[in-house]
Amino acid sequence: MEKERDGNGEGVPLLVENKQILFKGYINGIPKETDMELKAGGKIELRVANGSSRILVKNLYLSCDPFMRGRMIFSRASYIPPFVPGSVIEGFGVSRVIDSDDPDFRPGDLVVGLTGWEEYSFIRKDQQLRKIQHHDIPLSYHVGLLGMPGFTAYAGFYEVCSPQKGDYVFVSAASGAVGQLVGQLAKLHGCYVVGSAGSSKKVDILKNTLGFDDAFNYKEETDLNAALKRCFPSGIDIYFDNVGGAMLDAALLEMRVNGRIAICGMVSQQDLSNPDGIRNMFCLISKRIKMQGFLQSDYLHLFPQFVKDMVSYYQQKKIVYIEDMNEGLESAPAALVGLFTGKNIGKQVILVSHE
Amino acid sequence: MEKERDGNGEGVPLLVENKQILFKGYINGIPKETDMELKAGGKIELRVANGSSRILVKNLYLSCDPFMRGRMIFSRASYIPPFVPGSVIEGFGVSRVIDSDDPDFRPGDLVVGLTGWEEYSFIRKDQQLRKIQHHDIPLSYHVGLLGMPGFTAYAGFYEVCSPQKGDYVFVSAASGAVGQLVGQLAKLHGCYVVGSAGSSKKVDILKNTLGFDDAFNYKEETDLNAALKRCFPSGIDIYFDNVGGAMLDAALLEMRVNGRIAICGMVSQQDLSNPDGIRNMFCLISKRIKMQGFLQSDYLHLFPQFVKDMVSYYQQKKIVYIEDMNEGLESAPAALVGLFTGKNIGKQVILVSHE
Repeated sequence: MEKERDGNGEGVPLLVENKQILFKGYINGIPKETDMELKAGGKIELRVANGSSRILVKNLYLSCDPFMRGRMIFSRASYIPPFVPGSVIEGFGVSRVIDSDDPDFRPGDLVVGLTGWEEYSFIRKDQQLRKIQHHDIPLSYHVGLLGMPGFTAYAGFYEVCSPQKGDYVFVSAASGAVGQLVGQLAKLHGCYVVGSAGSSKKVDILKNTLGFDDAFNYKEETDLNAALKRCFPSGIDIYFDNVGGAMLDAALLEMRVNGRIAICGMVSQQDLSNPDGIRNMFCLISKRIKMQGFLQSDYLHLFPQFVKDMVSYYQQKKIVYIEDMNEGLESAPAALVGLFTGKNIGKQVILVSHE
Repeated sequence: MEKERDGNGEGVPLLVENKQILFKGYINGIPKETDMELKAGGKIELRVANGSSRILVKNLYLSCDPFMRGRMIFSRASYIPPFVPGSVIEGFGVSRVIDSDDPDFRPGDLVVGLTGWEEYSFIRKDQQLRKIQHHDIPLSYHVGLLGMPGFTAYAGFYEVCSPQKGDYVFVSAASGAVGQLVGQLAKLHGCYVVGSAGSSKKVDILKNTLGFDDAFNYKEETDLNAALKRCFPSGIDIYFDNVGGAMLDAALLEMRVNGRIAICGMVSQQDLSNPDGIRNMFCLISKRIKMQGFLQSDYLHLFPQFVKDMVSYYQQKKIVYIEDMNEGLESAPAALVGLFTGKNIGKQVILVSHE
């Protein structure tokens, strides 16, 4: 449906359709598909205005991440501004530059950064935009293994958990975008690693593909403490917590003296405005536990080393990365919603366009 | 009532009455006076057997500390063994050596360590026994300012809270044995310090005797968050938590980015087996909070420096210490119970005997 607009010698700006996923309005609880809507029929001119410093990209892969829920809730206290109702959803993506008024980015460049849930986006380089250097890594991995989730695992494990060889490490949501890497990094560090996940298929992947020492399906356990005692008869040194709630409460009771808990996410909490109470806080004292919340964005000085390490691990086949790939921009809302019911197996990505 | 037993030239062993406070049996919730009983009429021979390595002391001051509740609850998971029903209650005390089979301790020495809630006790030097060196400090301060509570404040504030000059510091149970020192150390460190306590008299002491910048009576506040917002319009950098429960939950919402919470005690929790749930854990992530439980006994390598610093502060009148002194061994059970209802103002001590 591309239509020639003019015929000057500088290029061929075109007016094309740009399907978008719009954010409808603030939510309570977890997102539903009806909190977003597909807007078709809008047009975009494939040209960046001189002096705008903007970059026009074609989006190839979009990332579904649990933190995006936080932007769908109206809160002044969040660490990231909320979405604006009626606007396009924003998230991490891999894109190809079509046109650019920024001298650092040229047409054809592959980039990763914050972009829109749409076919084409105008972005600025302050949107955490990076040029993709490692062309031997699958493109979509730049929003996973080498992107925000990978760096969350890396910074959280090494900088927050103070890991020691031989430590007993527990990871929840262990087959997810972050958890699967925490477990593999912990194994490479010489730790004993157990993961929890929400289906027997995920448990199988943890044990047989990702190299976890053990794993359990929390939905099949009537007593989380019994499950943890079975997997950790000597207790837990490090709990990398992606879920919060009942699993955090259970893990507190099973921690060892001087244990560390990295609080990374609370995906189990269906309503962040009315969360479960954590009752076993006394364990913090009796076991001298350090519990720390963190954001990967506080550790960006380590990003170059992270990329170097992860690329090396991947190339040496020391680390694998599992993705759940949905095709088509239209599939994005359901995929995002699915994060909160555990529908995805591995990192949830949307393929918007083949290169 | 002392009675001569024999008349050899080596000394005058005597059989004397030794009133004791016995632990009756394991509790749920907080201790009641009826969980302890006075046993009068028992006799003790004021002589240590050769080869026993024991030390016989006359107890002068006994300390009532919240951690003693933990020893009245039967739990395999505690960091300190439970009391034995029918046995004498054990706690920190200041005592004078009467007789000794340990060459390091001689009759007349003043000592501080774990002793019995009785008039005379046989102890061993492994019971954290130290000879009192600073005779210009009030004797009872050796179970407070210079004892376990003082060291808890010192180690917790400097080693767990990572204080910086200018930090906004909140202390709960702020007029208690630990809290009053945390607040004063924080002021000496250049922090802005606010305390909470449970009566207007305590609030007055915090503001006018202990030098806190502000204080509030939590029992008169209908909304703890409103109270904290009023006292900390820019938020809290450090929360030194002695109480747990609702105050911890409220403080979490008022913490600043990169805040630190030292979990020292949970005296607000009337039933440790059924504690309040802490709901605002999500703040740990959004504000990158470090929350750490600790025990002073992990930091004993710092004890000599602590004594040096505290003695110096006290001698320079930079620190004061407020005690609540009850007279007579008989008063000890009620005084211990009173810790959990906030009856004491300052460090609770029992005067058993004038020197």
